[in-house]
Amino acid sequence: MKPVIVVHGGAGTIVQEYDKEYRSGVKRAALRGYDILRQGGDAVTAVEEAVVVLEDNPCFNAGHGSVLNEDGEVEMDAIIMDGKDLSSGAVSAVKCIANPVKLARLVMEKTDHLLLTCKGASLFAKSQGIPEIPGEELITERSRERWKKNLKSGSIPKSVVRGTGTVGAVAVDSQGNVACATSTGGVSNKMVGRVGDTPCIGSGGYADNNVGAVSTTGVGESIMKVTLARLILHYMEQGMSVEEASDAGLNYMKTRVDDTGGVIVVNSVGEWTAKFSSNQMSWAAVKDDNLQCGIYLGENMINPISETL
Amino acid sequence: MKPVIVVHGGAGTIVQEYDKEYRSGVKRAALRGYDILRQGGDAVTAVEEAVVVLEDNPCFNAGHGSVLNEDGEVEMDAIIMDGKDLSSGAVSAVKCIANPVKLARLVMEKTDHLLLTCKGASLFAKSQGIPEIPGEELITERSRERWKKNLKSGSIPKSVVRGTGTVGAVAVDSQGNVACATSTGGVSNKMVGRVGDTPCIGSGGYADNNVGAVSTTGVGESIMKVTLARLILHYMEQGMSVEEASDAGLNYMKTRVDDTGGVIVVNSVGEWTAKFSSNQMSWAAVKDDNLQCGIYLGENMINPISETL
Repeated sequence: MKPVIVVHGGAGTIVQEYDKEYRSGVKRAALRGYDILRQGGDAVTAVEEAVVVLEDNPCFNAGHGSVLNEDGEVEMDAIIMDGKDLSSGAVSAVKCIANPVKLARLVMEKTDHLLLTCKGASLFAKSQGIPEIPGEELITERSRERWKKNLKSGSIPKSVVRGTGTVGAVAVDSQGNVACATSTGGVSNKMVGRVGDTPCIGSGGYADNNVGAVSTTGVGESIMKVTLARLILHYMEQGMSVEEASDAGLNYMKTRVDDTGGVIVVNSVGEWTAKFSSNQMSWAAVKDDNLQCGIYLGENMINPISETL
Repeated sequence: MKPVIVVHGGAGTIVQEYDKEYRSGVKRAALRGYDILRQGGDAVTAVEEAVVVLEDNPCFNAGHGSVLNEDGEVEMDAIIMDGKDLSSGAVSAVKCIANPVKLARLVMEKTDHLLLTCKGASLFAKSQGIPEIPGEELITERSRERWKKNLKSGSIPKSVVRGTGTVGAVAVDSQGNVACATSTGGVSNKMVGRVGDTPCIGSGGYADNNVGAVSTTGVGESIMKVTLARLILHYMEQGMSVEEASDAGLNYMKTRVDDTGGVIVVNSVGEWTAKFSSNQMSWAAVKDDNLQCGIYLGENMINPISETL
């Protein structure tokens, strides 16, 4: 089985001046995940490490670079899922840690639970030796400016709040196992304790070796209403291709709750796609030692990975 | 359209001595919901009010009577969903309020969000004038004894932790609208901040006028892995009856993650079922002015509501 990894850096409207950093960010994450897969690593580790690269990149709305809630603080959500046995781990509204996706993996592997929230997630992080960092360290000038601008505007227009930059990854490894991971700071100026689709299994992500894996991005509330990740896999179970199922899922979300978003999908035989109904979505994928990447509709740049290293 | 309400008081093993109070508890809740429907009330209000009756009953693991987490505190989860437009509200790990399902409804109606957790949920409750009550008020002697017993046993056997008593309701009103609500204290001696299936849309419940509504009960972690509520509605979309879809969903959970649970389901034309793969599940339903109720497999007592009032 030839391994595949696909990553996204969020769906929405990407400001032209950040085009280059989004592009290099998703490429680096995809190459990191692929490197693990090429060395025989498993899909779970590949998606985790790819998402860590994106969380550490201040350009994206996850980990360092997360948007701020109404109180000016970072509260993050993340999920990881292993398609082998449907095991999963997630955290919601967690503060003061660098990599929520790593904590989500520990929830999956070290507890009997699937989701830990808020203070409980922090206590668990501490028990696992994950260092607590000052919340300030996760905040960028860009996210603070955005927060201030939204505060001033009084009532916040939905177009402003719309998050771009949620990150995610899906992979299939050489053994045919699939996995997904998604991580986010949520929507800017959100209420304290707001939890979006990301840590909600079936909405922010889902992985099942019998079908495939999905990671979603967009306005969490709309994604949750249609449990977008699970919906796309249901369509695939009914015989649709990864592209058809992704389009059908995004169309359903548009028709039913009038919203747009983006998804990355792999199936268990290594077919993959990156689809979005929003204006843009930054994404990158590696298969057969070729790196592909895009931001705009119809865009698909292909390069051998030997040229990119 | 003839209105229907179905409620459950949790799947699991029900100790014989509590048989009578479980039975009268679910009956009272179903009658309360039916009363609202009969007066032309909507499905959302009917499921909310039925669940409030169960939350207020110390016999059930929700609201007053919730099980305790490892720290000996009550942390509750709840969800409500309106099948008309897929709007939904939920709270997770919320403390010190009497009726989490009421707070979930306020999240649905008064915020742009779907899920508020922990401290954020408490802040929102305060802003809505919901009184904060001492956590102690939610604790019963029975839940404290159970917590102590689990603490003593050191490592807690899964059979002990298994929750019974999560509560839920599904309804279809005279306009043909469906709704669901689920509320729980979770599993006894759970980690601080553990969130189960209940507030997770598609797992603890789902409602869609085009198909029907589901509320689930059992071990949250297993229900989440198969997104049980959404799965059953997918089966119904593919043409299965409410009974077939419920059995198929519970069978899938047994086969795939080796666990049991229970569900209550209505479809948009008022067909309903209460199914469980666990030893027991307390449930009650009212349709055509007949009250039905059961706890054991195959049991179905029917009485005209005129005899029960």
